[in-house]
Amino acid sequence: MDGGVIMTTESRVPSRSTPPSGPTASGRRPSQERAQATRAAVLLAAASVFAERGYARTTLDVVALEAGVTKGALYFHFASKHDLANAVIAEQTRVMREGADEILAGDASAIETLILLVAAYTERMVREVVVAAGVKLITEEIVAALDIVEPYEEWDSIYTGLLERAIVEGDLRPDIDCAALSHYIIGAYTGVQQVSNSLTQRADLPQRVAEMWRFLLPGVVPTERLEAVLALPALAR
Amino acid sequence: MDGGVIMTTESRVPSRSTPPSGPTASGRRPSQERAQATRAAVLLAAASVFAERGYARTTLDVVALEAGVTKGALYFHFASKHDLANAVIAEQTRVMREGADEILAGDASAIETLILLVAAYTERMVREVVVAAGVKLITEEIVAALDIVEPYEEWDSIYTGLLERAIVEGDLRPDIDCAALSHYIIGAYTGVQQVSNSLTQRADLPQRVAEMWRFLLPGVVPTERLEAVLALPALAR
Repeated sequence: MDGGVIMTTESRVPSRSTPPSGPTASGRRPSQERAQATRAAVLLAAASVFAERGYARTTLDVVALEAGVTKGALYFHFASKHDLANAVIAEQTRVMREGADEILAGDASAIETLILLVAAYTERMVREVVVAAGVKLITEEIVAALDIVEPYEEWDSIYTGLLERAIVEGDLRPDIDCAALSHYIIGAYTGVQQVSNSLTQRADLPQRVAEMWRFLLPGVVPTERLEAVLALPALAR
Repeated sequence: MDGGVIMTTESRVPSRSTPPSGPTASGRRPSQERAQATRAAVLLAAASVFAERGYARTTLDVVALEAGVTKGALYFHFASKHDLANAVIAEQTRVMREGADEILAGDASAIETLILLVAAYTERMVREVVVAAGVKLITEEIVAALDIVEPYEEWDSIYTGLLERAIVEGDLRPDIDCAALSHYIIGAYTGVQQVSNSLTQRADLPQRVAEMWRFLLPGVVPTERLEAVLALPALAR
């Protein structure tokens, strides 16, 4: 679905042939490792500035300053703020998918897999600035202007599939509308992390997510399975 | 708590004594009614522009254009974008509180009152651009820069009180942590409306809120009361 985002940004670097200016303008081409390190530093700095200021108030000058590179070095990798925002979102997508793939390949029950996915998302959102930046860019509703086809669609489809499996496994009441519940979990989680961010810069997010499950699960898990589900190690993390 | 917001913005108008420029600079002071109509038009235009563009990308030129007034007329009422944003938030607070006071003065059970409050909030968010604008400004995390002490605190305290009363009335399980549930409802609702806004410009919000209650209530309402609570007219709106 948004593989296009990754291709767009990653295919951009090799297509540039103009030499960089600034500290690398001495005539010598930077080694590939050095170029990659610079690109990574710029991306990290951009994530940090986007996460703090949002899209509109971010300038390439501030990003270059934060990254400790010249604007010429920045322009070698990213043509514009728009480019940089897309690269941040591509990197967020990559980081999140990497964590998710590992969990989805495991042999946990569907309901535990769902809880582990949300826990992994939470952990990365607290720890990795690129994830916090991606979330900030997406919630700023500038989605249409960036290369994001549909920010929630992929998760919605993964969650719906897990919930359908959870019914088969007996961990979810069979009358539950899985698409509606998936949509609700995404909405509820989005808000829980946002309020946590506004009030505590996400310091209380793990606790708030635990509370979310504590209030949500008793309404959708069959009574006879509730105790076992609430005792899942994934909820104790 | 945020009565200060209202006082700040409302006390600013009479303190100005410089005559307006632009169409009212003909030497004649505009009548008070006319001044109020201009202020209301500017506020509505500002709400519309803030809701669409957010704080950073809003300019006073665009607001004046949208309101059909000169910048001089705008400056007669609002000294800066910061002032205008605070006035929009004060107006949102007023609109929301007006609706809430009426519901809180009614004689519905606590759980029904809570559901009615959320329904009224939803209705106003869909219908009144000043509410949508206030929500947008608050979720942009520029809270600290504006005169908002604590965007969720007042609702959190009202909701917690209602939930405590709902336990006494038998509509909520006595083991529920009311402060945690209130916090969760605010977070879940914040996200549900935000995802609805991103995906459908809030067209599906009433349906999503109905789903939120349908998933949330069975987890917190005692089994023997669940059918009656889910049948509340407030949920059928």
